[in-house]
Amino acid sequence: MKVKVGINGYGTIGKRIAFAIAKQDDMEVVGVTKTRPSYEARLAIKEGIPLYAARPEHIEAFEKDGIKVAGTLEDLLSKVDIIVDATPGDVGAVYKPMYEKAGVKAIFQGGEKHGVAGISFNSFANYHEAWGARFVRVVSCNTTGLIRTLYPIDKVFGIEKVFAALIRRGADPADRKGAALNAIEPTLKLPTHHGPDVQTIMPWLNIQTMAVVTPTTQMHIHCLAVDLKKKAKDEDILSVWDKVPRIKFVSGKHGIKSSAQIMELARDLNRPRGDFMEIIVWEDGVKVVNSTLYYYQAVHQESDVIPENIDCIRAMMKLERDPMRSIRKTDRSLGIGK
Amino acid sequence: MKVKVGINGYGTIGKRIAFAIAKQDDMEVVGVTKTRPSYEARLAIKEGIPLYAARPEHIEAFEKDGIKVAGTLEDLLSKVDIIVDATPGDVGAVYKPMYEKAGVKAIFQGGEKHGVAGISFNSFANYHEAWGARFVRVVSCNTTGLIRTLYPIDKVFGIEKVFAALIRRGADPADRKGAALNAIEPTLKLPTHHGPDVQTIMPWLNIQTMAVVTPTTQMHIHCLAVDLKKKAKDEDILSVWDKVPRIKFVSGKHGIKSSAQIMELARDLNRPRGDFMEIIVWEDGVKVVNSTLYYYQAVHQESDVIPENIDCIRAMMKLERDPMRSIRKTDRSLGIGK
Amino acid sequence: MKVKVGINGYGTIGKRIAFAIAKQDDMEVVGVTKTRPSYEARLAIKEGIPLYAARPEHIEAFEKDGIKVAGTLEDLLSKVDIIVDATPGDVGAVYKPMYEKAGVKAIFQGGEKHGVAGISFNSFANYHEAWGARFVRVVSCNTTGLIRTLYPIDKVFGIEKVFAALIRRGADPADRKGAALNAIEPTLKLPTHHGPDVQTIMPWLNIQTMAVVTPTTQMHIHCLAVDLKKKAKDEDILSVWDKVPRIKFVSGKHGIKSSAQIMELARDLNRPRGDFMEIIVWEDGVKVVNSTLYYYQAVHQESDVIPENIDCIRAMMKLERDPMRSIRKTDRSLGIGK
Amino acid sequence: MKVKVGINGYGTIGKRIAFAIAKQDDMEVVGVTKTRPSYEARLAIKEGIPLYAARPEHIEAFEKDGIKVAGTLEDLLSKVDIIVDATPGDVGAVYKPMYEKAGVKAIFQGGEKHGVAGISFNSFANYHEAWGARFVRVVSCNTTGLIRTLYPIDKVFGIEKVFAALIRRGADPADRKGAALNAIEPTLKLPTHHGPDVQTIMPWLNIQTMAVVTPTTQMHIHCLAVDLKKKAKDEDILSVWDKVPRIKFVSGKHGIKSSAQIMELARDLNRPRGDFMEIIVWEDGVKVVNSTLYYYQAVHQESDVIPENIDCIRAMMKLERDPMRSIRKTDRSLGIGK
Repeated sequence: MKVKVGINGYGTIGKRIAFAIAKQDDMEVVGVTKTRPSYEARLAIKEGIPLYAARPEHIEAFEKDGIKVAGTLEDLLSKVDIIVDATPGDVGAVYKPMYEKAGVKAIFQGGEKHGVAGISFNSFANYHEAWGARFVRVVSCNTTGLIRTLYPIDKVFGIEKVFAALIRRGADPADRKGAALNAIEPTLKLPTHHGPDVQTIMPWLNIQTMAVVTPTTQMHIHCLAVDLKKKAKDEDILSVWDKVPRIKFVSGKHGIKSSAQIMELARDLNRPRGDFMEIIVWEDGVKVVNSTLYYYQAVHQESDVIPENIDCIRAMMKLERDPMRSIRKTDRSLGIGK
Repeated sequence: MKVKVGINGYGTIGKRIAFAIAKQDDMEVVGVTKTRPSYEARLAIKEGIPLYAARPEHIEAFEKDGIKVAGTLEDLLSKVDIIVDATPGDVGAVYKPMYEKAGVKAIFQGGEKHGVAGISFNSFANYHEAWGARFVRVVSCNTTGLIRTLYPIDKVFGIEKVFAALIRRGADPADRKGAALNAIEPTLKLPTHHGPDVQTIMPWLNIQTMAVVTPTTQMHIHCLAVDLKKKAKDEDILSVWDKVPRIKFVSGKHGIKSSAQIMELARDLNRPRGDFMEIIVWEDGVKVVNSTLYYYQAVHQESDVIPENIDCIRAMMKLERDPMRSIRKTDRSLGIGK
Repeated sequence: MKVKVGINGYGTIGKRIAFAIAKQDDMEVVGVTKTRPSYEARLAIKEGIPLYAARPEHIEAFEKDGIKVAGTLEDLLSKVDIIVDATPGDVGAVYKPMYEKAGVKAIFQGGEKHGVAGISFNSFANYHEAWGARFVRVVSCNTTGLIRTLYPIDKVFGIEKVFAALIRRGADPADRKGAALNAIEPTLKLPTHHGPDVQTIMPWLNIQTMAVVTPTTQMHIHCLAVDLKKKAKDEDILSVWDKVPRIKFVSGKHGIKSSAQIMELARDLNRPRGDFMEIIVWEDGVKVVNSTLYYYQAVHQESDVIPENIDCIRAMMKLERDPMRSIRKTDRSLGIGK
Repeated sequence: MKVKVGINGYGTIGKRIAFAIAKQDDMEVVGVTKTRPSYEARLAIKEGIPLYAARPEHIEAFEKDGIKVAGTLEDLLSKVDIIVDATPGDVGAVYKPMYEKAGVKAIFQGGEKHGVAGISFNSFANYHEAWGARFVRVVSCNTTGLIRTLYPIDKVFGIEKVFAALIRRGADPADRKGAALNAIEPTLKLPTHHGPDVQTIMPWLNIQTMAVVTPTTQMHIHCLAVDLKKKAKDEDILSVWDKVPRIKFVSGKHGIKSSAQIMELARDLNRPRGDFMEIIVWEDGVKVVNSTLYYYQAVHQESDVIPENIDCIRAMMKLERDPMRSIRKTDRSLGIGK
């Protein structure tokens, strides 16, 4: 029997998780919620996914717009084994008491604080911590991206110290509000929260981060300077990443020079929604100088956490004990591959 | 036996035409050309499409990069019934003598002048003109967009006069050069070439156009003011368009307010490459005041001409005499629908 | 004795009006208000302009930040002959009762509805209507721009009908929120409010408008199609505008092709703040076809209404009876000229 | 008698240097060159600056456009003591033989390689090296920015190692070509040239850099991580910079959060052309963690090298032996100040 999953919030992340779950053989979506009768609500219905109002007070707006909902979040919670909270940042914490009352497990996203769940999750670094857990947080797109490439490097070469400058996209493609149109805005509070967020999963890592917001909609770019404990050459680094799932190389020499060209590649590869769930590393943008490794990576903010959510469900619901087996199963189902 | 099609130029348009032809049962791609060993060249190979160098002098660069080409354009021309020229603007004219010498039919794109082919094409307005023709030009994305909505309105209500302001996207998403980053640039030469270009297909139409370029990558938007000969209400207009293929309605009331949100919808509908080959009309942005119809439409510059190219092949190769049967066949194969 | 002016709101418009008043010999700024201790509040103090808190409840925030205010708006109102309301859109209406109670005259900006003042103002079209008036609204940047070029054309050639497509900038340069980053968004409610707004000053004019928002910060661009009653050649049109103040020609042939290049010219001419208070017309973007005049114009959204505010003060305070004398005086003081 | 200066290239940098020289009492501009009759050529004439054609073959284009030039670069060189080369990157090297032949001193800009002049210049770090020199290169905007803040920190606290991530603006405001519209593009060749360029002036500095290009037009932003030799607190760092000219603090707490808001401040301060010739440091974006200093700075790419050019002329022409006296004189004349 498949694990029954509900999704609270059918937006950028929620709709992708629903799509991903539909590709799995050990779990299924039994309903999603929306707060307003937006086009995404209509989309859920069109896709045949039962639609619930997040709160009873939202039902009226749906009915006025001719949309019949299957009930409210409370109703949905009574039908699921686990709820994936994909609400906006810090809203998950508001819903948590409802999840607790309903006695269901819950996954939160990276917009929530670590304390909401007590366990922060990455498929590669700490799959076992989520085993059978009641509440788990899948870390944010940027944190997931940092861990995907740093964790294997740390394992093989040891990391003395990491400095990362995060050049963030200002808003998602369809967002109407976001960054200033023609400005770069630094995150002045230093060090930024990204370092400590990585440490919720790799507490031993010495990492400092700075960040700026730029007026783009396609991917975050990270500039990393990593002091290594053991000697390594450029090709040693590439060789380690080459063996790890969910890291994909591109090459400026072949014409993939910018975040936009990476997304074009995703479209050309006919990836669903034009997403890249892998972390993208420029193979000609990796350089070890003395004992410091410098590299650039690109993070698709809308989708890189999707496979992590699937694996997290498996761990929490005890569907698969071996992390690499879950990772490979997820990746195969979603068309992720080198 | 399938019609053998070659594609000269495997870029934004060429790769989409190749994808679309692969979905047809009456034609097949036998090869594409590139001038450089770019990632798109690698993509062709990955997709199993025979790759040719556009010119003999390009072969060396491919070989140096470890790419084996199947020959040159000349070789490709010896294997095809028809070549689709998808080279950059005004370059098709340079290649035309090679097409003539090889004795193959050729389709040019809207970046070429009308005179290159002598026949300009739109599936709805003049399919029959391309019947069995040697050279035909599929008009540009903007011209295709204007004809798609104006032609049926002209047929039903009669058009006295059209004024269109074209708000153009500055560059395609993956382009590295294009418009200024933070500027609006008008096309000063008035009237712009778009009106005369529509008249290559609807020579009787009284149309004037102005245009500006804006720093966006997703879709052109048209503002149209159309003086009608017969009276019409908003709903009469919508009703006409509703019956015509390749016109799709969206609604600001349901949250689709901008070009970016239209493209998000295409991704959500899992359209290949996130393309919208239809012309998009805002149903709540249509208004008749006295005898003038005002409306906005959005044109996906990368893809709206793709189905037109498929129909054009059918007309030129005498595969289907009835335009609407070709249109429906094309649309069904490409997932285009209301 | 100089007319005593207060300015409610020291933001984009307010700080420019203060600067402009300081250049006049018949009026002076006696104080400005802010709601928060922003850098603009500090700027006022640095410039030696008495700073008032808009509301008593704002004082605490100023004091906490070490800024001593001279009082509240109520105090300021007791010291002025006239208040210029430069608060955000629709906020002026909220303050109006305070202005009434204080017995001062007030100018509102174009973000307010016509009804707030009952009189809408343009220096050229209806200076006399503001003569001695209690409340007047200076129309918005776009409406001011439309009237500047349409009014003289209507006077000389007669206008049958106007269609204008407004390509709007999405946000001002320093705004942190505004338009989507990579989208064009049409104003779906048709016809847009711009036509009726022009008619508050030119009620006889048959004008329809459409509008789109683009992700730029520098100037609105208008595409205009104007059906003329009398025959005119391109040079007749240019000749009319050449004689009117506050219209400036640029030429694509000399390298001024975009809104950004216009603003660069303003900087090169060492205009204060890099502003262009004139409406900019491309002289090589003007074309009469049959009886229709087509032209592009650019409107600097931050500053074109500033001279209008100065003239409006003069009319309301009965400082100068002849509009052209006020216009010339204002322009001379502000460095506006052909 | 004033030193006679010619400027080869009257574009973004050239026109600013001309403006700055006009404010000095010990030097004067005797002529500038252009290659085309652009609006900047007209501007020079309007400002009363003698205009020369860069090459004899350019004269025709000027005359055709009704612009009379005073001669060619060769003529100009015969009238000057020193020429400031403000041509596009790597073009200065092409002109160098003409400067040599004419026997004049020459300043090159940062777009040239170090070897063109053999001496690279920063007012604070190595003024004396330019003393009486024949050829000197003023380093680029980014390099100037890095040295302005790093040099005093190195002097006071000692620097072990610097890592800088440069978030570059994609193009200048009025440029029509530049970066992709909606993309972030890393500079893949690592380490980027910025570190070695700093070392042309501070050869002892251990510095590594990475860089990305973003679709903005206003200022570069640097993220810096500086390992210090001596202990320092945040306020110690600020105190050092506070005493150094050409470093200006802004504060996010007062509402200056982005590059665009910094430029707004420049306009509000009525700086010529809205330029900021200082390096801008966010005082609430400075943080020492253990022995590493983290900070953000903003560099106005169009203007920060202008005062350096003035000082460089003084050093090369032996007008002032004391660097700080030249710096203070330049700053006073240009309105640069804390």
